[in-house]
Amino acid sequence: MLPRTLADGYRIWRASALPETRGRLAQLAALGQAPSALIVGCCDSRVSPETIFSAGLGELFVVRNVANVIPPFRPDGKQHGTSAAIEFALHGLSVPHIVVMGHSQCGGVKAYLNASEGSRGEFIGPWMDLIEGTKEDALARNPGLTGRALEQAVEEAAIRMSIRNLRTFPEIQRRETEGMLSIHGAHLDISNGNLNILDEETGSFGPALAAAE
Amino acid sequence: MLPRTLADGYRIWRASALPETRGRLAQLAALGQAPSALIVGCCDSRVSPETIFSAGLGELFVVRNVANVIPPFRPDGKQHGTSAAIEFALHGLSVPHIVVMGHSQCGGVKAYLNASEGSRGEFIGPWMDLIEGTKEDALARNPGLTGRALEQAVEEAAIRMSIRNLRTFPEIQRRETEGMLSIHGAHLDISNGNLNILDEETGSFGPALAAAE
Amino acid sequence: MLPRTLADGYRIWRASALPETRGRLAQLAALGQAPSALIVGCCDSRVSPETIFSAGLGELFVVRNVANVIPPFRPDGKQHGTSAAIEFALHGLSVPHIVVMGHSQCGGVKAYLNASEGSRGEFIGPWMDLIEGTKEDALARNPGLTGRALEQAVEEAAIRMSIRNLRTFPEIQRRETEGMLSIHGAHLDISNGNLNILDEETGSFGPALAAAE
Amino acid sequence: MLPRTLADGYRIWRASALPETRGRLAQLAALGQAPSALIVGCCDSRVSPETIFSAGLGELFVVRNVANVIPPFRPDGKQHGTSAAIEFALHGLSVPHIVVMGHSQCGGVKAYLNASEGSRGEFIGPWMDLIEGTKEDALARNPGLTGRALEQAVEEAAIRMSIRNLRTFPEIQRRETEGMLSIHGAHLDISNGNLNILDEETGSFGPALAAAE
Repeated sequence: MLPRTLADGYRIWRASALPETRGRLAQLAALGQAPSALIVGCCDSRVSPETIFSAGLGELFVVRNVANVIPPFRPDGKQHGTSAAIEFALHGLSVPHIVVMGHSQCGGVKAYLNASEGSRGEFIGPWMDLIEGTKEDALARNPGLTGRALEQAVEEAAIRMSIRNLRTFPEIQRRETEGMLSIHGAHLDISNGNLNILDEETGSFGPALAAAE
Repeated sequence: MLPRTLADGYRIWRASALPETRGRLAQLAALGQAPSALIVGCCDSRVSPETIFSAGLGELFVVRNVANVIPPFRPDGKQHGTSAAIEFALHGLSVPHIVVMGHSQCGGVKAYLNASEGSRGEFIGPWMDLIEGTKEDALARNPGLTGRALEQAVEEAAIRMSIRNLRTFPEIQRRETEGMLSIHGAHLDISNGNLNILDEETGSFGPALAAAE
Repeated sequence: MLPRTLADGYRIWRASALPETRGRLAQLAALGQAPSALIVGCCDSRVSPETIFSAGLGELFVVRNVANVIPPFRPDGKQHGTSAAIEFALHGLSVPHIVVMGHSQCGGVKAYLNASEGSRGEFIGPWMDLIEGTKEDALARNPGLTGRALEQAVEEAAIRMSIRNLRTFPEIQRRETEGMLSIHGAHLDISNGNLNILDEETGSFGPALAAAE
Repeated sequence: MLPRTLADGYRIWRASALPETRGRLAQLAALGQAPSALIVGCCDSRVSPETIFSAGLGELFVVRNVANVIPPFRPDGKQHGTSAAIEFALHGLSVPHIVVMGHSQCGGVKAYLNASEGSRGEFIGPWMDLIEGTKEDALARNPGLTGRALEQAVEEAAIRMSIRNLRTFPEIQRRETEGMLSIHGAHLDISNGNLNILDEETGSFGPALAAAE
């Protein structure tokens, strides 16, 4: 039996949105999916990409892990879940866009910053090793940062690092060079819903929408 | 710059749903998240858990990988993204429920079933090795299955296997025994939106809601 | 050689929108189209559905004829272009929505209303016979209408008639009954861009968006 | 009620493009349309003429049917939607250009080529009979073609046939002879957005823009 809140939510979906989505779902099942983007997001319950981007079923292919991390290309025959998702999005779905979406108050980033203070966890510690060097990157860009400001700077540095790692995949390089794929970095402030976008020339983040909107 | 469809969707969210969510978001940022469940779902664009369960921001902690696979407990100091998410959901968030949610026409399961026919992919092949044995499990329960029916039986067997793997995590065992955590298997038919729930006694799946609903 | 305005427009598209659409186009070519709706619209240059609905390539399957007319189901082995488009949208693409979109100052409707006054044209006359009876329908609902007001009432009656004709296709009936397909009537006022939507209960048209928007 | 994606798109158009188009729309409503070309295009969602040619409202009079087919002149008092659109474009609008625009991976052409393999459909089969002979034309020009290459050759042959059919309309002949009308064939490759133009002397297609552009 489903937990009550999930059963209630499923019941509500069936009664409200499903009826007008029924035909679209059948179509997506018959024709297959062709999502317009791969989103690499965090597991955090406050950053659902479908919600933030008002996306219907079929629109976004979404991989979510702790702290929206992309590891470097390492085809060693071992299990790499995020790399498998990237491979599927490229070879199976030819997605034209990849968005790495981080967010404020990220628990994974906090774990990385506070790692020396206590236990690293059996899995979270090694996982967050993937963003090693981002604290130094953040402080090099803006010395003296502490607290919440440092956290955010590291969250942003981790997005830049994930994008660098993404470009170690040969197929990513090829498609980006050919203009078949574009890569985007985004950071959501969960306190107010503001989304900022990475400017790769400067490495800094600015509003997703023009000021007047 | 964001892709146009994402920018449009974000604009719509800001104009429609965000205003009435603003206070809740600020609260979630101030107090931290306390999601009611961890969902282990697939990256497929047609199975967004927040949509299926009508979930608002803050309600579901979601890890999504290809074919919603949970690997067995293997604390070897290497990177295990899904295990890190499970650890975070337990130690960081004390989630009371875990739902492993599979779905019909799963591309990962197809890749597993057709692996002998062609290339396995550098990452998808090894990743889908995690469900090795599910074809045999499906055929043992129901010999002679082929085509779409076999696919679905394997999707269901993979959910059962992920739940078995989940229980190899000592902390899962402890919390389940103490009644602090319950585990659920679910399978969504994307052609019609029907959700079926695993009955662990029989290993088979049945409707999430009673017939009358 | 293309006419200059078209060559210029194509050049502009290549320089502005195409680069960021390149990947999406390749994806749509590789995976096939899965448009979210069939639009039955008029050839009129002032009512491009992609413009009105801000739709990107791949989103709308569009049949356009004079006065956005749908003939009744008549499988006589002869050529019926609009019926062929409907068949393709259903059997080939499983579209979940059909929108019949008329508009103000429709030349086809004017030709129908003024037919007795002069030449009917070799093709426009017989074509507009398809909406025979709509003047009577309009006047029955609102006796005494003349001029521009009568034209608009006939444009609306013709949309209702096309929807009735659409429902003479057995496959439309089946899919609508099963909740796989929904049908919509819309009327665009080209003088100001206001879109009105048919309320099938009353037969009248009202604003597509709530007043506050 | 409009489907959500259409309502969203309409909302976006009203907020973004409509404000600066308002005066032009009012003018077009007051003075009537005077489009610079008639486009005969396909219903396919990936080939919107207004998008490809960056055309604003009022610029293109567009008839779209399955596979952008023009039937021969046949004034038998029956309904011929495409011929009615051509008549309207000539007598009502005096368009100076007609462009027949086909495209790659055309579902109508595929249906024609595969017709012997299965059901023809009640309407698509008879409709595609209009391009009978194009396979032979394509193979006569280039014997031994198969697969995707044959498809494209037939798409091109069908454009040539539609232009021949267009010239069976006496009014077309008259206007073309008088230099009041010019006729163009175009083929869009949807995988990359390349538009090729028919050279009527050779019957073959080449790039719409000179190489340097």
